[in-house]
Amino acid sequence: MRKLRMGMIGGGPGAFIGAIHRTAALMDGEIELVCGAFSSDPQKSKQSGEQLNLDPQRVYGSYEEMIQKEKALDENKRMDFVSIVTPNHLHFAPAKLALNNGFHVVLDKPMTFDLKEAKELQKIVEASGKYFCLTHTYTGYPMIKEARQQVKNGRLGEIRKIFVNYPQGWLSNFLEASQNKQASWRTDPSKSGKAGAMGDIGTHAFNLTEYISGLSVTKICADLNIVVKGRKLDDDGAVLLKFNNGASGVLMASQIMAGEENNLTIQVYGEKGGLEWKHADPNSLLLKWPDDPMQTLRAGTGYLSDIAKHNTRTPSGHPEGFIEAFANHYRNFALCVKASIEGKQPKAEWLDFPGIEDGVRGMAFIENVIESGNSEKKWMEFVV
Amino acid sequence: MRKLRMGMIGGGPGAFIGAIHRTAALMDGEIELVCGAFSSDPQKSKQSGEQLNLDPQRVYGSYEEMIQKEKALDENKRMDFVSIVTPNHLHFAPAKLALNNGFHVVLDKPMTFDLKEAKELQKIVEASGKYFCLTHTYTGYPMIKEARQQVKNGRLGEIRKIFVNYPQGWLSNFLEASQNKQASWRTDPSKSGKAGAMGDIGTHAFNLTEYISGLSVTKICADLNIVVKGRKLDDDGAVLLKFNNGASGVLMASQIMAGEENNLTIQVYGEKGGLEWKHADPNSLLLKWPDDPMQTLRAGTGYLSDIAKHNTRTPSGHPEGFIEAFANHYRNFALCVKASIEGKQPKAEWLDFPGIEDGVRGMAFIENVIESGNSEKKWMEFVV
Amino acid sequence: MRKLRMGMIGGGPGAFIGAIHRTAALMDGEIELVCGAFSSDPQKSKQSGEQLNLDPQRVYGSYEEMIQKEKALDENKRMDFVSIVTPNHLHFAPAKLALNNGFHVVLDKPMTFDLKEAKELQKIVEASGKYFCLTHTYTGYPMIKEARQQVKNGRLGEIRKIFVNYPQGWLSNFLEASQNKQASWRTDPSKSGKAGAMGDIGTHAFNLTEYISGLSVTKICADLNIVVKGRKLDDDGAVLLKFNNGASGVLMASQIMAGEENNLTIQVYGEKGGLEWKHADPNSLLLKWPDDPMQTLRAGTGYLSDIAKHNTRTPSGHPEGFIEAFANHYRNFALCVKASIEGKQPKAEWLDFPGIEDGVRGMAFIENVIESGNSEKKWMEFVV
Amino acid sequence: MRKLRMGMIGGGPGAFIGAIHRTAALMDGEIELVCGAFSSDPQKSKQSGEQLNLDPQRVYGSYEEMIQKEKALDENKRMDFVSIVTPNHLHFAPAKLALNNGFHVVLDKPMTFDLKEAKELQKIVEASGKYFCLTHTYTGYPMIKEARQQVKNGRLGEIRKIFVNYPQGWLSNFLEASQNKQASWRTDPSKSGKAGAMGDIGTHAFNLTEYISGLSVTKICADLNIVVKGRKLDDDGAVLLKFNNGASGVLMASQIMAGEENNLTIQVYGEKGGLEWKHADPNSLLLKWPDDPMQTLRAGTGYLSDIAKHNTRTPSGHPEGFIEAFANHYRNFALCVKASIEGKQPKAEWLDFPGIEDGVRGMAFIENVIESGNSEKKWMEFVV
Repeated sequence: MRKLRMGMIGGGPGAFIGAIHRTAALMDGEIELVCGAFSSDPQKSKQSGEQLNLDPQRVYGSYEEMIQKEKALDENKRMDFVSIVTPNHLHFAPAKLALNNGFHVVLDKPMTFDLKEAKELQKIVEASGKYFCLTHTYTGYPMIKEARQQVKNGRLGEIRKIFVNYPQGWLSNFLEASQNKQASWRTDPSKSGKAGAMGDIGTHAFNLTEYISGLSVTKICADLNIVVKGRKLDDDGAVLLKFNNGASGVLMASQIMAGEENNLTIQVYGEKGGLEWKHADPNSLLLKWPDDPMQTLRAGTGYLSDIAKHNTRTPSGHPEGFIEAFANHYRNFALCVKASIEGKQPKAEWLDFPGIEDGVRGMAFIENVIESGNSEKKWMEFVV
Repeated sequence: MRKLRMGMIGGGPGAFIGAIHRTAALMDGEIELVCGAFSSDPQKSKQSGEQLNLDPQRVYGSYEEMIQKEKALDENKRMDFVSIVTPNHLHFAPAKLALNNGFHVVLDKPMTFDLKEAKELQKIVEASGKYFCLTHTYTGYPMIKEARQQVKNGRLGEIRKIFVNYPQGWLSNFLEASQNKQASWRTDPSKSGKAGAMGDIGTHAFNLTEYISGLSVTKICADLNIVVKGRKLDDDGAVLLKFNNGASGVLMASQIMAGEENNLTIQVYGEKGGLEWKHADPNSLLLKWPDDPMQTLRAGTGYLSDIAKHNTRTPSGHPEGFIEAFANHYRNFALCVKASIEGKQPKAEWLDFPGIEDGVRGMAFIENVIESGNSEKKWMEFVV
Repeated sequence: MRKLRMGMIGGGPGAFIGAIHRTAALMDGEIELVCGAFSSDPQKSKQSGEQLNLDPQRVYGSYEEMIQKEKALDENKRMDFVSIVTPNHLHFAPAKLALNNGFHVVLDKPMTFDLKEAKELQKIVEASGKYFCLTHTYTGYPMIKEARQQVKNGRLGEIRKIFVNYPQGWLSNFLEASQNKQASWRTDPSKSGKAGAMGDIGTHAFNLTEYISGLSVTKICADLNIVVKGRKLDDDGAVLLKFNNGASGVLMASQIMAGEENNLTIQVYGEKGGLEWKHADPNSLLLKWPDDPMQTLRAGTGYLSDIAKHNTRTPSGHPEGFIEAFANHYRNFALCVKASIEGKQPKAEWLDFPGIEDGVRGMAFIENVIESGNSEKKWMEFVV
Repeated sequence: MRKLRMGMIGGGPGAFIGAIHRTAALMDGEIELVCGAFSSDPQKSKQSGEQLNLDPQRVYGSYEEMIQKEKALDENKRMDFVSIVTPNHLHFAPAKLALNNGFHVVLDKPMTFDLKEAKELQKIVEASGKYFCLTHTYTGYPMIKEARQQVKNGRLGEIRKIFVNYPQGWLSNFLEASQNKQASWRTDPSKSGKAGAMGDIGTHAFNLTEYISGLSVTKICADLNIVVKGRKLDDDGAVLLKFNNGASGVLMASQIMAGEENNLTIQVYGEKGGLEWKHADPNSLLLKWPDDPMQTLRAGTGYLSDIAKHNTRTPSGHPEGFIEAFANHYRNFALCVKASIEGKQPKAEWLDFPGIEDGVRGMAFIENVIESGNSEKKWMEFVV
């Protein structure tokens, strides 16, 4: 089948994540970028379009214009889906418009500005019958998929304890005072929403615990901090967790751990053994056993689960990284959309990308964690 | 000066920690073992004494007998200090008796059965004028001493966040049902005290946070769990911490993290940078910087602080381990006792071993953490 | 400028490296695949073309046909360059034909079947005035570029010792007896050339020593082995090296180190310090100092050289891998070709991809190492 | 039984290795230091004796005096064995005298000044009927013993390839020009013998290959270098090896790898799998498998061989180090000597310490490697 045609909303000059989305979308040859509304400033949008060698006619001044005009194009030409990579407060409206006009959607996380929007979006997605992908990058890594399989297959026994830590240090100073675009909107409640670090990276950590364990968080107790003077949103926090099977957990997310890069780490322990994964060494998965030597499972090997293999491009010892994990979501999403265009059933392994349900729970995490952080009560029910 | 003469209380057949104490005491040639009351069973005590080549006359059936008879010996022969390595409920009485009879004391942690005993012991120690060492092993590692120096010297700036994790997996099953001596007393409230994992290993973690940072815990919020059915004391827990400068922290201690050995890990972050130490690689200390490459400081090198150097025996690249860390406490204690015998002032670096103050705070940690674990209130003041 | 148009020779069904080339070429949005002669079997070529969504008219039955017909196309449509990913014995002819017909060339390593072809190709490349890129992947890694800069800037002082080890284990058994396509041609002298492991991976290791150090090998002493019975080419070897400044080195390359994946490792030592890079952790570069702590330089950080930064897509802590290293060569090559099309000068940093000179020296390495392996003489001059 | 009584020859003020020997000898409580001839300068010897709290009457001015006077003492008092820790040129004479006078001997490596002395010493040892231990530290590590067992049990299949690397950087400068005692004698041919780095550390590496593999080196090809100007002995080298089963190997030993500490590393590959051990992480042993996940075996666990367990003091996760490895040799030696005193048979596991055979082969290694280094011939037979 032909390549899928992608339109992008956001991702103009200086946008880190927009470039990552494009690279991830392109690398597997399943998708081509055909149009975009890259900035709310039409001039900047045009400029981005030029850099990306797009047909100037398909570089739009607004997402509304893009959706309207693309819809009017011939079926053989118009975009198949939109990829939305704007700041959080600009997620809901373009996603809604795209879905309501028949376009599939890829959306950056956290899903919306607040939980209310999230629930509304859920209804829209469900009513639309379109595919919706939320780019929680980390569940795209093959060894995370393997971790989930190991738990699912009962290798670790009943899960008892989960620890996830997402340490960053880039907001150790009052960076929003400078012209840093990333820092500015992420620390601004009118763009980022109620949460800072917990929204930006805590949601990834939260998503990972539930994805790997197959469990759901039921109670939380949060300690949220604004460490850097003048900042308006949490830049550091720790959350005690309880899961629906009685397991307990700890989630840490901080952007003031000076000197840390992005070494998201998760450890899951069951009755029979434990597992550990670190973003700094993403192609390894450690399995730890009480009475046997620790094993290091490696991406690209023959002994992994089929779903891990499906999400790998290189033989073992040829490291894949962040962009490939991102690309796995795009590829699986694209395979599903193509199947739908061809009127075929998607394979089960293609459906394994984060979607609307992850998004709603992620937004619920943000609201619950903020409420718990402000509360004097210890345990709060996790309410969606 | 001659070797110091040590008497041991506890540490009979099958006692893991007693053998460690002896090895640590002997290795530097500062101390000799001259007598012992190794078991409450006189027969077993005798047997241990034989294995250790002691004069049978100085192998006693009880610690009371030992203290009384050794006191009666000629000054040139009698023991200088006792090393007490019994289970927790048998710490206070022999320590008290030894101090009141003029013997210096080395005592295993946690210090006493409860906080009340701890405070009483503090008065006894202070009144006695004798040296008292509590074997919190981990502060004996040279790179932990270096970590403390780095903080003290302001390298990291004001401390903002501390994370300490003490993961073990050996109690993942109901081991106390078997004949495992270690498991039996450590999970028995009548011997171990109010806490299980939090007392056995949580106190080490707690001690480490305060030792390295120079800060004091002021508030806690604990989640304690009994994971293994039938167990009587906590075998897993996580504690949110607040320190006296406003820094926050997380402490984890668990004995049901299946597959984990003993990889105590601590990370401390300040305004300017962070540090990390792992027991699995004890001769390295990582310093992390926001705008410069991470540094790996190594034991035995010339660029370390004097106090780190003083606690090292080998050149860099020749790993020292757990027994040497233990031995550092014994050696520093011995150097102080010798100085006192010779009527000299101890050097500042010799005094750097854990003592009665650490013990009282450790016992307070246990009581506070248990109370917080049972409370519905989020934050509790840390009360001593 | 528009995307460059790539035609591919080889890389049909089951070809590992062909797929890597395509992914690497596509990911940065600089290049599109427009045509191919994917197999000498026209049916298979057609099949590959379909899978890749190519215009069937531009899927050719042979490279000769492709070059001829593409040349006949309108300038606005025809391919700009060819990417040749066939086995070694099929490198020279298509490269020659492409260059002689005005196409730029990307070619997989080792460059040709033998040194004679290599020297001939060098003349052709030089006469053509076209760009030529040889995909020695490892020099595409940003931290390898940083390593080269560190040496160039004199950080290590005069280089004294180089150690490079390329360990693989996938040929531990007589895999060529099975239907394994990779094993079959790589162990067949009629397709692979004179060398097995030394050609396939030893050339990478050799290239890396010269690239990082800026030195040239002048003498070698090789121990080559055929370990697996029945194999026709070396599957294991070690080579003592001398460099033109008097430094010495050791190169190891083996495909029978059972259990090893692909952890190419290089260590370079100078008067003042040493560096170390491992493919298993490609985003780190260790700098070791006699009297200062080891430093870990990380990809994506601000303190790296401009050339390292130019070859990175993600911020630090977001790992890039093998495909991105590969893509760096494609991107730099593409930037140069585009500049040439636009009549502009390429930037110096774009020119930093392996080319014809690396290829000639690589082929010389193969011939020299085979000769040395068969010789009873210790040191042999390295002759090109 | 009582403690064994040790006399020490050498190990006076500033001697690194003498202090290590004493600590290693003392820590297990099997041995006491009773006398010594610590320096050829009687004043310095006396001073050392005082620091070590020895009876001044048993601190001697020469080893001859010590052996003579100790022999004259009552059997219940006199030393049982001597530990010789002098520079290489002062090994043979005191060892000979001690053995001929009925004392067991522990001797530091390399065994003698040259191979001739080594062979003579072998005869003396064999004639004496006394125990003789050569302190090749690294074979004292439990995970090295485990490695040997894994090979012995056939886990790796027939051995094909061995790589050992002993990198140090402390002689990167002309340190012998300063007052550094260690550097002075080790780079002085009149004290060290024919070899520098190859004698000091290459012999350890050589010993390790044969110990773990159970194979013997049969041919070598050496590249030896004097890198630092003015130095008289090799400070860097690499040796190609052939073993008696046809396996090949590479041995590297250097003291000019600037920034390296002492990270001796060995990798052994067989038909079925490989193993890897690094001195920087001595309590782990990696087992690598072609089709299964890598395993990390850890000291102190229940799944290890009995001989590994016998050489461990702490449970897993409580790191032991260099001194404990050293102490394992002393303890095994002591257990044998005690058995001999008591007229009992030693257990097989006690006999597993390096002895005269290792010493002779080590000295042969030195002579062969120096000859090969000077030769233009490629392969030389390894002659003892």
